[in-house]
Amino acid sequence: MEKVLQKVKEASKKIATLKGGIKDKILLQMADELENKSSEIIKENEKDLLYAEKANLSTALMDRLLLNEKRIENMANALREIASLKNPVGRVLEGWELPNGLRIEKTAIPIGVIGIIYESRPNVTSDAAGLCFKSGNVCILKGGKEAEHSNRVIAKILGEVLEENNLPKEAISLLPDYSREGVAKLIKMDKFVDLIIPRGGEGLVRYVSENATVPVVKHDKGLCHTYIHKDADFEKAIKIAINAKCQRPGVCNAMETLIVDEEIADKILPLLKIEFIKNETILKGDEFVSELIEVEKANEEDWNTEYLANILSIKVVENIDEAISHIQKYGSGHSEAIITENYSASEKFLNEIDAACVYVNASTRFTDGGEFGFGAEVGISTNKLHARGPMGINDLTTYKFKIYGEGQVR
Amino acid sequence: MEKVLQKVKEASKKIATLKGGIKDKILLQMADELENKSSEIIKENEKDLLYAEKANLSTALMDRLLLNEKRIENMANALREIASLKNPVGRVLEGWELPNGLRIEKTAIPIGVIGIIYESRPNVTSDAAGLCFKSGNVCILKGGKEAEHSNRVIAKILGEVLEENNLPKEAISLLPDYSREGVAKLIKMDKFVDLIIPRGGEGLVRYVSENATVPVVKHDKGLCHTYIHKDADFEKAIKIAINAKCQRPGVCNAMETLIVDEEIADKILPLLKIEFIKNETILKGDEFVSELIEVEKANEEDWNTEYLANILSIKVVENIDEAISHIQKYGSGHSEAIITENYSASEKFLNEIDAACVYVNASTRFTDGGEFGFGAEVGISTNKLHARGPMGINDLTTYKFKIYGEGQVR
Repeated sequence: MEKVLQKVKEASKKIATLKGGIKDKILLQMADELENKSSEIIKENEKDLLYAEKANLSTALMDRLLLNEKRIENMANALREIASLKNPVGRVLEGWELPNGLRIEKTAIPIGVIGIIYESRPNVTSDAAGLCFKSGNVCILKGGKEAEHSNRVIAKILGEVLEENNLPKEAISLLPDYSREGVAKLIKMDKFVDLIIPRGGEGLVRYVSENATVPVVKHDKGLCHTYIHKDADFEKAIKIAINAKCQRPGVCNAMETLIVDEEIADKILPLLKIEFIKNETILKGDEFVSELIEVEKANEEDWNTEYLANILSIKVVENIDEAISHIQKYGSGHSEAIITENYSASEKFLNEIDAACVYVNASTRFTDGGEFGFGAEVGISTNKLHARGPMGINDLTTYKFKIYGEGQVR
Repeated sequence: MEKVLQKVKEASKKIATLKGGIKDKILLQMADELENKSSEIIKENEKDLLYAEKANLSTALMDRLLLNEKRIENMANALREIASLKNPVGRVLEGWELPNGLRIEKTAIPIGVIGIIYESRPNVTSDAAGLCFKSGNVCILKGGKEAEHSNRVIAKILGEVLEENNLPKEAISLLPDYSREGVAKLIKMDKFVDLIIPRGGEGLVRYVSENATVPVVKHDKGLCHTYIHKDADFEKAIKIAINAKCQRPGVCNAMETLIVDEEIADKILPLLKIEFIKNETILKGDEFVSELIEVEKANEEDWNTEYLANILSIKVVENIDEAISHIQKYGSGHSEAIITENYSASEKFLNEIDAACVYVNASTRFTDGGEFGFGAEVGISTNKLHARGPMGINDLTTYKFKIYGEGQVR
């Protein structure tokens, strides 16, 4: 593996200084080539599907694995969208002049070698490769074992486009040892790898972040709250609560716990119940809630659970302080919302809640790179360092200081 | 330890939202209290000195350990300087409005709980505590075992000022288990600690970065080069080379290897030799160099050595490409300089060298938070992520997105 990583690192020097126009031209070629070679991709994908069938994978997993003309077109279009983004490399982030005349420029540059570890869906292979390439990084990819044939052929096609442009195909590499042991080695290769991004289930993310010596940007958990303050506009509150829970319950920015001020609980809970029933949401509640509306009993475990399903736990609090301390205790620091017309309450919530995204009068479902206007999706970070919350392609860069002198010494 | 860390984390909620003016007032009080209680500090320091004497510590180490009125005044003044810095919390880093009217503000906030592990010098205790407090962070400090009494009394005095202001004294804590085992535990406490900064020798830094599961911002090594390009102004080149090596050879931003273009080697090396001899620098060189001036033989190990002493290795290269690839191979990504009057060469060097600081026509000795105008010194990072190069107090913050809505849903 060291030999391959050596080549990947070597390749990174070439890719890091490519001009933006050249990178975009190559990304468009890559998109075309995926479409041109769709039958080759589908043939390899069929091998994965056959294996998956033999291994009795669930229909849902089989569907995630499947590639057809339409899905390949979507992969190509994702690369075209990446090509249309502004070059994240070379942005001058800050600049100033020292009293001695030295001129300092803090400039965005690629991170270097990024390892991306993901599960199942083979389209991540071209997405991740495209995002890394656009930001001047090289990548070493490890997808699901069950998608190995599909991933290999996609990486091969992208690598061939690099070679046609006299660039090292290693700039887009699959992990050579395509196994758990391979991953275990990769995440300790500080010498060659600058960043690891695990994209997948909780088990994978935990394993990587506990064992990596290479820095990790991870997304672990989204346990999001919506807090309806006593001065909330009921219409907004109900609309936002329903949207945060029901529009797509299986995602990380969906609400898991609704918090309601005691003062308005008897008025708003019955109204909320009507709407949630329409949306077939299973409701759980604390003792106070269950006195007002019919719900299952919520216990300590519920406050700690990311349901990722159309289930909601509801808690009644005395005031905003109790709401904030519940959220700080059980929240995952992902996305939290307050619904209120009260200025001071909104400011207090915005300032005191420690989370990547804090909302006033809006659905937590907006926590998303696309919604934030970042273009292509890199992911959502629950790290506090380097990148936090929705990540744009700019978050795949670091910086250096360029210092322009004319003979200055200390 | 978990219990103490629990309290530290609890304290962080209070400190994170303190207003800037209050933090500055408290920092000034802390400075005064250190001076008022200097005799108490000196008494505790004498215990450490006595122990050190018994343990036969070197005179240099004894001197680093010593606190007197003057040094305590310097510690107090450092806190006053920190108080005078702009509040790093609450800066709006970016802001924009989405097509649906949602208003997004990316705002700087404290990181949370920062563990700082350092060696010997007890003044680091008040510096680190002050920097963390100013940036709204709480800290858990672990200094050298030999300075334990001094560190404890300093932290106690600062904590008392916090208590007088109705703030939890735990916001400035010493590691309760003041041992190697304590450190080993601390660096795995992801649940309570957000960042570890090791400040000290190579062994400490390596140990922490290899074993921590908490994110680490480290400074490991400064192996800096100065490259004299064929189109260099000789006067500037000689002045800068001497400064980079001799002004203070024992620090990380001093030059370790000088690289000279073949085309000018026979002219400039004898001139350089005269100046280095005046500065009593021990010169080593490759074969080419030794044909032109009298030097010790440099070998592979020399290119890899951070001398931290008045010793210099010299290499002659054919051209800028060879210079860049030597630097990329042996450099530590800290600070690298080119001396040239040639525009294209300067651009090539600035763009292709991957280091925290890349200089044209200036001494690498400027890589320093104070020189960069950051005010108080947090350190120099050789990480690529979160912070790179000289760190200002702003680098002790992360960010959150505040999102202002009026009922928006997806």
